Amino acid sequence: MFYVTVLGSGATLPTLQRHTTSVAVQREGDIFLFDCGEGTQLQWLKAGLRRGKLRAICISHTHGDHVNGLVGFLQTLGLHGRERPLTLVGPPGLGKIIKYAKETVGLRTPYHLETIESTGGSVIEMGGCTVSCQLLEHHGRDTLGFRVEEAERPGRFDVETALGLGVPEGPLFGALQRGERVELPDGTVVDPSQVLGLPRSGSALAYCPDTRPCEGALKLAHRVGLLIFDSTYSEDLSFEANERGHSTAREAAQMALDAGAKHLLLIHFSERYASRKRLNGLLEEARSLFLQVELAHDLMEIQV
Amino acid sequence: MFYVTVLGSGATLPTLQRHTTSVAVQREGDIFLFDCGEGTQLQWLKAGLRRGKLRAICISHTHGDHVNGLVGFLQTLGLHGRERPLTLVGPPGLGKIIKYAKETVGLRTPYHLETIESTGGSVIEMGGCTVSCQLLEHHGRDTLGFRVEEAERPGRFDVETALGLGVPEGPLFGALQRGERVELPDGTVVDPSQVLGLPRSGSALAYCPDTRPCEGALKLAHRVGLLIFDSTYSEDLSFEANERGHSTAREAAQMALDAGAKHLLLIHFSERYASRKRLNGLLEEARSLFLQVELAHDLMEIQV
Repeated sequence: MFYVTVLGSGATLPTLQRHTTSVAVQREGDIFLFDCGEGTQLQWLKAGLRRGKLRAICISHTHGDHVNGLVGFLQTLGLHGRERPLTLVGPPGLGKIIKYAKETVGLRTPYHLETIESTGGSVIEMGGCTVSCQLLEHHGRDTLGFRVEEAERPGRFDVETALGLGVPEGPLFGALQRGERVELPDGTVVDPSQVLGLPRSGSALAYCPDTRPCEGALKLAHRVGLLIFDSTYSEDLSFEANERGHSTAREAAQMALDAGAKHLLLIHFSERYASRKRLNGLLEEARSLFLQVELAHDLMEIQV
Repeated sequence: MFYVTVLGSGATLPTLQRHTTSVAVQREGDIFLFDCGEGTQLQWLKAGLRRGKLRAICISHTHGDHVNGLVGFLQTLGLHGRERPLTLVGPPGLGKIIKYAKETVGLRTPYHLETIESTGGSVIEMGGCTVSCQLLEHHGRDTLGFRVEEAERPGRFDVETALGLGVPEGPLFGALQRGERVELPDGTVVDPSQVLGLPRSGSALAYCPDTRPCEGALKLAHRVGLLIFDSTYSEDLSFEANERGHSTAREAAQMALDAGAKHLLLIHFSERYASRKRLNGLLEEARSLFLQVELAHDLMEIQV
């Protein structure tokens, strides 16, 4: 189960209505932060999130609106006495921002900062949860999308059936739950499929804030519970969307449909969609293709 | 006349109550921005200031809390179509931040950005107004304080007296107003001192957000209408103040007194002074030495 908090939902220019796009994903005691534009650390405070739970910061790309708040956030963590290691993931070039900040603005990270520059694949593996990334199609520089996914858990163990088959309570129960075939004292062999339900899939979500519809996004979004996707423009500006490496609301909906996502969250709106009316235009455009769609807004919370 | 807007009033760590220290000073159609920590561009919007009026950004020093919002602000100006040149002033090392931002986060400035690295002296001269700076005593890196000062204007021209002395209306009036001695048609010589009042001094203010009391600050603050001064700590933490290159509220008051400033604005409070009670402690401490003192708060406006 993931608890998603939208910290920012706008494109490029921070405004009083929308911070630049950033999303926090909490799972058990850990929070993954996706993108960190200017002011993200204050949005984090407004959302009531705890800095101590921050496990990793994943940066989609090094355009300022996705990364200008990173150095300040890392500095604040240090000043607040962080000792827990932090993982920083992003495309090639991210490490240089940290290096330069240490040289120019006095950034100090008195905690272990593991910086991973990736162009695709699994980047974080931890108890029952994986973060992976894929290259997307944005303009000008390497851009990543991310997928956070809980591991599949075994199906439910049916105690009644096991007892009925003569399996005695004890170590053989555990073996069956782990998926092992067991032999009973009388020689009968019991297969786990006889006592286990279907494997239970974990939650999954994908975050693709700046991209054209593309193969990488399709992989990340495959059957996710929540797809958070670039909807910078409406369909009448599809030329601009294509030119600038973004998507329209309709393209976001098509992606959700193609990937078999359950829900779609439109994000990264151009500031021209400031009015409720214009925003609703984006929503309607997407909804004409895909029903389970919502518009992101700052400090919105969603459970996946 | 200056209109001062406090955009941020806190030290080091941005909080929901106080942004990091930053001040906008408006004079006629121009605004000078002093320091630009994370979120300053949003505070600028909240204060209702117009980006088109921005004439210069003056950075006291390159610690992150004074400069982390600079790249984002410069980027936003460009995206909003700025063509008017912009002057950027700060200590050595400031230009490197801009250079690196162009290399790493895609900063573009499609307007002329004149970057001045200074360690003291006059940095901006424009119609009737000068911005100058001095090195202060902070820790770890070159730190500037700034003084903004209107030029002295000639005293008022006394028309009655001039006519009484036989000066005919016309070019001789103008010559006297410019401070020139004139000879009347009958050979009488009239000195400007006979018809002009005392020179009228312009407004002046000084901005010294991170410093120990020092000679540079004293020069900047000499007889200013408003001294905006480092009050990171109260007197019981004078050891920390000295250690970290900051001042106590009492030291700020002593500086205002020594410099002959008219008003003192305490700023750059450590986040430990979050409560009204603790803040009032700072105010009382300063007021015991210097009566005309106030505590800065975000979005406060003052006329000088």
